[in-house]
Amino acid sequence: MSEPGGANRARSEAMLPFDDRGLAYGDGVFETVLVRDHRPTLWQAHHARLIRGCEVLGMRAPDRDALEAAFAGAPGLKVTKLIVTRGSGGRGYLPPAQPKVRLRWRSTAFAPDTARWSAGVEVGLCRLRLSRQPALAGIKHLNRLENVLARAEWREEKIAEGLLADQQGWLTEATAMNLCWHDGRRWFTPPLEQCGVAGTLRAALLEAGLLEIAPLHLDELARARALCLINSVQGLWPLRRLHFPIQREPFEPPLADAHLALQRSAHQLLGYHR
Amino acid sequence: MSEPGGANRARSEAMLPFDDRGLAYGDGVFETVLVRDHRPTLWQAHHARLIRGCEVLGMRAPDRDALEAAFAGAPGLKVTKLIVTRGSGGRGYLPPAQPKVRLRWRSTAFAPDTARWSAGVEVGLCRLRLSRQPALAGIKHLNRLENVLARAEWREEKIAEGLLADQQGWLTEATAMNLCWHDGRRWFTPPLEQCGVAGTLRAALLEAGLLEIAPLHLDELARARALCLINSVQGLWPLRRLHFPIQREPFEPPLADAHLALQRSAHQLLGYHR
Repeated sequence: MSEPGGANRARSEAMLPFDDRGLAYGDGVFETVLVRDHRPTLWQAHHARLIRGCEVLGMRAPDRDALEAAFAGAPGLKVTKLIVTRGSGGRGYLPPAQPKVRLRWRSTAFAPDTARWSAGVEVGLCRLRLSRQPALAGIKHLNRLENVLARAEWREEKIAEGLLADQQGWLTEATAMNLCWHDGRRWFTPPLEQCGVAGTLRAALLEAGLLEIAPLHLDELARARALCLINSVQGLWPLRRLHFPIQREPFEPPLADAHLALQRSAHQLLGYHR
Repeated sequence: MSEPGGANRARSEAMLPFDDRGLAYGDGVFETVLVRDHRPTLWQAHHARLIRGCEVLGMRAPDRDALEAAFAGAPGLKVTKLIVTRGSGGRGYLPPAQPKVRLRWRSTAFAPDTARWSAGVEVGLCRLRLSRQPALAGIKHLNRLENVLARAEWREEKIAEGLLADQQGWLTEATAMNLCWHDGRRWFTPPLEQCGVAGTLRAALLEAGLLEIAPLHLDELARARALCLINSVQGLWPLRRLHFPIQREPFEPPLADAHLALQRSAHQLLGYHR
């Protein structure tokens, strides 16, 4: 990784032109990385998803060195957001044959909401249903209007996240986190082949064998004896109460401590517990 | 409308910051307007769609005067692209409570491809199927990765456009144009309640009673005795031959001149024939 320098800073903070395809069409991908004293957390998973996203969109990814330059700068706990767009050019939707991809980033000081680790969170089921598009599922592309509309459904501070089902009622994710559910014996996370973003903490827990993939339909919510939300920045939040947008009693998963082992592993992966 | 001035030009060409929500999430809308000697064509329909798009996204649209300032500048035939984003701010996907929307535009000299008006075009059926999302259907928002992926399916010059069906096989639109089909008696255009962009020329032809809404499934393509593609910049292209991504004979609609009356009306609306 290079030191924070003039050229680096200039690139990281440079504005984007009107004709950038990231702005025009959402033609690009992004990553939000937890960085501790210049060391990106779960970087292998973030990098792999970024590469995969560029492949799906048919564009060359920036070199790893160029990406890792974003983690220079002041020490401490930060979140670094990387945006990679297909750059300018092309004829309308048609991408240029040899796009010059554009890389930008910004780092922000960060502290996780540790109260939520222990107390858990209340979550609302969103009215919006995710559309199904296998050609874009899983990657972290810049077309995020569904997430924006879903997140705009509530402003009450006591609701920490919004749960999303797809058009057919399959529970998929939360607006900015992945969903895990426990059947009384093991932890599962829904498949993301039709929609949703495949999070990096989810990937790491799957790889570690601590999580398996299994679908959960809204109509069979009672199969979930425990629920939690995860991402690579916030860690793991146990879900204490799920509110519905219709007249229906909130759902409170009965197992209160089922998440403790998974949370410990997740937080070790993120460097929150050592 | 105001004169082309320093402030105007500065705003129109100003770059966008990293944290603009148009870049981050595609959180905004756009319009592509045919402008003849400062007069925007079908402006009422463009303006109405932009207002409706902002309503759907839950943001205030710029004042009409601010939008119309984009049509100043040199005379001649141009295409002016307007982009309206929700601006900067918010907490992640959560929009700011009082967003300061950002307006940008660019004008480009334009000449329609008149050879296609008379000779018609060859079109390919895209492999990509549009996802169904009633919450976003019809508006011209900035989440256009499906269009980009569909348009990236071919580079042969002889293929003028790509036809798109939705996940259930309903013909919807082309990558940048709307579809019209003729049953031997009347012209129809598919409904756009699940996906697609409701074009302004389509809206004007519907309002004039020259077009009606009716679905057409891929499996019943032979019901179409004639096909054409329309938009507010290019006008109307008769579709001469439709190629398939699988081994199948191209489809050639039998009625060669059914489009002439509709084309005349469309081109009058665009000022191409008087």
